[in-house]
Order: sequence, then C-alpha cells, then structure tokens
Amino acid sequence: MPQFLDTTAHEFEQAFLALLSAKREDSPDVDEVVAAIIADVRTRGDVAVIELTERFDRIALTPDGLRFSPSEVDEAIDRVPAAERQALELAAERIRAYHERQMPADDEWTDVTGATLGWRWSAVAAAGLYVPGGLASYPSSVLMNAVPAKVAGVGRLAIAVPTPDGVVNPLVLLAARLAGVDEIYRIGGAQAIAALAYGTESIAPVDKITGPGNAFVAAAKRRVFGKVGIDMIAGPSEILVIADKDNEPDWIALDLLSQAEHDESAQSILITDDADFGRAVADAVEARLQTLERREIAGASWRDFGAVIVVRDLDEAAVLSNRIAPEHLELCVADPDGLSRKTTHAGAIFLGQYTPEAIGDYVGGPNHVLPTARSARFSSGLSVMDFLKRTTVARMTPEALRAIGPSAETLARSESLEAHGLSVRARLDRLNG
Amino acid sequence: MPQFLDTTAHEFEQAFLALLSAKREDSPDVDEVVAAIIADVRTRGDVAVIELTERFDRIALTPDGLRFSPSEVDEAIDRVPAAERQALELAAERIRAYHERQMPADDEWTDVTGATLGWRWSAVAAAGLYVPGGLASYPSSVLMNAVPAKVAGVGRLAIAVPTPDGVVNPLVLLAARLAGVDEIYRIGGAQAIAALAYGTESIAPVDKITGPGNAFVAAAKRRVFGKVGIDMIAGPSEILVIADKDNEPDWIALDLLSQAEHDESAQSILITDDADFGRAVADAVEARLQTLERREIAGASWRDFGAVIVVRDLDEAAVLSNRIAPEHLELCVADPDGLSRKTTHAGAIFLGQYTPEAIGDYVGGPNHVLPTARSARFSSGLSVMDFLKRTTVARMTPEALRAIGPSAETLARSESLEAHGLSVRARLDRLNG
Repeated sequence: MPQFLDTTAHEFEQAFLALLSAKREDSPDVDEVVAAIIADVRTRGDVAVIELTERFDRIALTPDGLRFSPSEVDEAIDRVPAAERQALELAAERIRAYHERQMPADDEWTDVTGATLGWRWSAVAAAGLYVPGGLASYPSSVLMNAVPAKVAGVGRLAIAVPTPDGVVNPLVLLAARLAGVDEIYRIGGAQAIAALAYGTESIAPVDKITGPGNAFVAAAKRRVFGKVGIDMIAGPSEILVIADKDNEPDWIALDLLSQAEHDESAQSILITDDADFGRAVADAVEARLQTLERREIAGASWRDFGAVIVVRDLDEAAVLSNRIAPEHLELCVADPDGLSRKTTHAGAIFLGQYTPEAIGDYVGGPNHVLPTARSARFSSGLSVMDFLKRTTVARMTPEALRAIGPSAETLARSESLEAHGLSVRARLDRLNG
Repeated sequence: MPQFLDTTAHEFEQAFLALLSAKREDSPDVDEVVAAIIADVRTRGDVAVIELTERFDRIALTPDGLRFSPSEVDEAIDRVPAAERQALELAAERIRAYHERQMPADDEWTDVTGATLGWRWSAVAAAGLYVPGGLASYPSSVLMNAVPAKVAGVGRLAIAVPTPDGVVNPLVLLAARLAGVDEIYRIGGAQAIAALAYGTESIAPVDKITGPGNAFVAAAKRRVFGKVGIDMIAGPSEILVIADKDNEPDWIALDLLSQAEHDESAQSILITDDADFGRAVADAVEARLQTLERREIAGASWRDFGAVIVVRDLDEAAVLSNRIAPEHLELCVADPDGLSRKTTHAGAIFLGQYTPEAIGDYVGGPNHVLPTARSARFSSGLSVMDFLKRTTVARMTPEALRAIGPSAETLARSESLEAHGLSVRARLDRLNG
C-alpha cells in the first residue's frame, strides 16, 4: 500500500516535504570508467569502439560493420507485423504534425532609429540519437527524438543502438526509417556517446546528442557536454493524477500503474478531494497488481513511492501540483481546462477521463520526453527547439549609429572597455566630420 | 603579431585545425572546494553565507544586512552621473523592446480525430542572477540577464553581487532597478549560488540561475544544475570579422581589439579576401596597442590567439566562418545580408561597417550573452526562452480515443508495457460496450 496523506492532518506539510524530497534514484558513480572509455575512443577511434563493443555486447564488428547497411535495415523491417507497422506509422504522422506547428519564425524589423534588428533560426547540422538496447529499446522513443530533429531540418541524423549478442529490435529500425534517420550504428554505452561527440574513422562527429540511456550513457553525455550539445538527463518517470469521485477507480489505477511499471524508481501520485474515492483507487491498484505482467516492478514503485493525497478542494490540488511540478499531469475532473490553467508547472497535461497518459506516450502528438524530478519548474519537454539555434542580427545605418552610438560609448567607458568605446567613436567622428 | 594564414597555402588545413582547437582557457579545478561550500550553506544557511562572505569579501554582515535595503539602493543610484543614467535607460529600453518581440505564442487546435492539442508557455516562478564584483562588474550584463527575465514574466528576480571590502558599483544597482529586479544580495562566489539554489533563512530559493562568474561560480552552477536550471557556462569571448578591402583598417582593428581587451584568453580573427588589407589591419592593431588602456591584456590575446586569414573569395570565408561558429560575427562587405545567409552558425551577426560589435554589447537590443567556444553550432544566446517553459496539453474525446487508442495499445504491447495498453483498453471497452 502507498502512503495516504491528508491536507487537514497536522503533520501533512512535513509528510509532503518528505514525499517531494524522496531520493528515488541511486546513480552508481561510473564517472572514472566513463572518462577512460571516452579517452580511449578519442585516441584509438574505431579500434576502441570495436573492442568495447565486443566486451560489452559480445559481438565482433569490423569498421564497415559498425553501421547497419540499408539491406540489413530492410530485412529487419520486413519482419515487423502489419498491425505494428501501421501503429508506428500513425504515431510518426501525428508526432510530425504536432512538431511542425512548433517551428518558430524568423523576424526582422527596422526601428525608429533606422536600425534593422531581428533573428534567424537554423538547424543543428548533425545530431546523434542514443537508443538503449535490450528491455528499454523503445521504438516510440526513437520517433519522439528523431521526428523533431528532422522537422527542425537537421541535415544528418545518426542513431546509436547497441545490439547485445547481435539482437536488434526491428521496430526500432522501422521507427528510424519512418523518421528519416540517415545512419544507424550498432554501438552503445559510453563508447557510442564518445564516437558521436568526437568522431572516429567511420563515424563523423555530430553537434548535438539526445536520447535516454543508463548510468554510463548519462555520465558520458555530461562529460561531452560543451563539445556537443545534449538534452536533459532524464530521471525516473512520474505521474500525478488529480481526480474527483466521478471517475472509474480502475481507469485511474491503470494510469498510475502505467508509470509505476516503467521502473521501481518511478512515482505515481493521486490527488483527490474524496477520501473514499482515493481508497477505491488504491484497492483497484492492488487488484490489478495481482495479474499485471510487470507487477514486481510496478508493485515496488507503488509501495515505495506511490501516494494518495486527499485535499479539501481542487484549488488546493492545484497548489500541491505546482509544488510537485510533475512530468505528467492527468486532470480527471469536471472542468479540466479550468484546472489546467492553475497548474502551470508540469511537463505535459492530459485533460479529462478519456486522455490516459499512455496516449501521450505513443500517438497523441506531443513529445513524451519530458522534464522529471521537479525540473518542469524551469524546463520543457523535447521539441524542435532542441535541434534549432537562433542567430541574432543587427544592422546600423549611419543615422542609427548617430542616435544610439554615444550611449554605447558612455557605457563602454564606464566599464573601462576603451576599445569598445573607440570602435564607436572612430565611426562617429567620420560621420560628424 | 598574430598568426597569418592563407587558404592557398599547402599547410592551411593543419594550421586552421590548430587554431580551432587551441585551448585558450585553463580552468582551475575548484570542484572540491565548491562542493564543501555548497554543503556548508545547505547545512548552516545564513551563518555559513555570512562567514564565507567575511572570509572572501572582508565584510561583516548580519542576516538582515545580506540584502540591500531600498534606501541603500536609492543612495547608490543617486551618485550615478546623468549621462550614464541616460545611456543605461536607453539600453534598457532597447533591450526590452527587442526581447518583447521574442515572446512565443501559446497554441491550441483540434485535429481531424477531434483531439485537442497544443501547448502553453509559462514563466519560471523565481530566478537568480549572478553578477560578478570588482573589475568585471558590468551593468550591461545586469540588463542583458534581468530584462529578458522580467519580460518573460518571472515573478521574483533576485541578484547576487559580491561587494569586496564593501565596494559596490552604483551602475549595477541602477541597472537592476531599471530592469525591475526584486531583491539584491551582497554575496558572491559559490556561497551565493548555493544560497540561491537551496535557500537560507533569509534568502528564498529560486528555480533558475543565470549570469557570468569566475571558476568558483561556474563550478557551483554545474553542481546545482538539476536542483535548479542554469544558463550556459560561458567561455572567453570571441569575434570573427569578415572584411573586404573597402573598409577603414583602423575601424576593423578597433573591433578586433574590443574583444581582445576583455581577456587574455579572448580570440579575435579577421578573414579577408585581400592580403594587403589584412596586413594594414594588423598594422593598425599594433598602432592602437601603443596607447590602449588595456594594451597588456589586448596585446596578449591578439599575440597568442589572434589570426588573419586570407581567403580566395567570400564564399570560402563563409565556409570557414561556419567551421569556427563564432560568438560574434561582423560582416564588413559590400553585401552583408547576402553573406549572412551563408553563415548560419554564429551567436550574433553585425551587418555592415556601421555596426561595430560594441553596439551589440550595450544598446543594439539583441542579447550580448552568446554561445562561445564553437557552441553556436548547437546553442543560442540568452533570450526570454531561458525564463519560460512549455507545457504540452492534450485532450481526447471518446471519438478521438476510438480513432487512435488502438494504435497506442498495439505499441504499448510491443514495448511490453501492459498497464499502458490496459489504460487505453479499459476505456475503449466501455466506449464500445
């Protein structure tokens, strides 16, 4: 059974703070190992990558074999059943449509002084996407990373996906194909991140690396950050469901379990204004846990980090939600739109009882790579913006320089930056003389 | 004298690669010291901050005195001469006008299935801005960080600015006032970053920290990242000027020196299609270095990291520029707009001979906090986006769930996430039955 909290209880604030600060993840310290792997790949290139892949993934590769050939991809994709292919195609199409609307516009204007100002967006030239192998090899994550990159206009998109014992998930290759990925490498771990960041004889370096991974991958991403851009380092998944009593307890239970089944460190929280409903949901969770395939994982997550919080009213729920700043927020209440406008710190909001969070994981359209561990207070989910950068532009006319140049000169002198001031003054003297 | 490179020379590629990879900065390893300071502030709060401030800044504070009172700010601001006040007001106004145009729009639409999709932007609730003390205490940087934060709608904006021996730059306080900063603390170093990230008895924690600082500040920002958001860790400043022979060599020389005077690790590069012009600019730099106030710093930067590159034509200049991905790019050529469209990897572009980079540092309007060390390949300058986050929203109707739910169920099963599939299936069964 999870924790039950009640905002009217004397000790609520203390219990809620404990829930907020619960350390759910113990990342092993692999930083030294990772540093050595990166140094090795930088020094020895392909040879290092091949040796490390043999050691960790138990497959012997040649430099030519690091990359999947088009016919290898074709062959794997042919094995995908029609229903799964169609589902993946629908998902790709909907994710593409959503992210196309995110593309920001360039701007340019002339102000009262005659100065032309603006900015231009351009795509990262080359990006790399890490895809975990084995159990957590999710084709949906390939789409969620690769589609925004291609919509943004990334010219060269490479995937690194380890194939332990040579096993590859055909759906991952199909998702890569549907998204328009240009290169797929059968490498993983810190060696894959190093190869993407620094390049080897067979793998050209990229400018940005995104995608989830284990502790080694996360540590490697942190280390190559600066040389290349990276996306956020994601923590265990979370969901907060705010539900009133007019819901089916079993549906809410399944929504809570669909986060809990990801990982023993995942966290599922229900906030309700009806204590009886809260107990009914908890009972429904227990019932589902009798038969769920991943009941050990989901059960551990629910027992260790799950919570049911009973509030006085939904305004109080909104306040708590903003303090939690959940990755996923499901609003199963009579007026979900109204409540959503009060819950500003959340990665993604799912409105109404017919929008289970799982829809957002696959086919809704919005991205499922979202800020965890309360970082929705200051960051956003993955989007086309992660694969774009903005260059500002400014052009002064002689008149504009006359109008604002003297102020620049004054400020430069006040900051003791003489050459800054002189670079303006030399031009003004010419214009005035 | 700086390096002279010529793209027609046999050894050019090697020399250019050496220039690109020159290590200009040796950051001292202060990580252990910083970790201890952060732990101390987390444990002892105000007491630790006060002790550390006494040790490093030689001033004795009380908890009440950590923050500047409004009358202390008033008093300091009254000492600012009228010309500097007016210049700062003009800068604030222009920076505000530029950044107001950056505000992104919310979006919401209904697709063919009946699903409502969209996103909403919201501001970070509280942000902290670090302002270095002493020599590098730049009021312009206060405006460049604080104005976008307030334009974005940050509710609570706090500044930390150390005041060694009690000395404060009145222009910094005036810039804070003009930008609408809410709280100003006279603390600095890693202890200030820790106080902003974790809070103390007297300082409420923030959600995002931006602003430049020394090695201790940078290491502290790296350490608190995750607990709060941070901006980029900026390296030494850089400028690339592309100029044809129809320019005044002295103007270009001053533009190169206005980066070089920042820091011995700064880098100034000229690319020109005319070797004689390149030599004339180098001569003009030497002439200016005879008298420039910061000639020792600027001279060291120009000697150690400066370069003049002679190219065959301006298309070649654009290719090299994209490989450099400069923080600042000045285009002093006959058709700067045309050339700017070929140079997509740059933090900020300054078009034409009447737009010295110094204009952008103060009064142009665009931000002067820009990506350094080739990171313009994958990142952008500071903007309102750094103080906003996006929440995606999705709402399914029963019809929409019928249309796309089965595909979500199929993909969930293929990823062995049974509860995900069941959360969709349970609803579909009700709708269908």
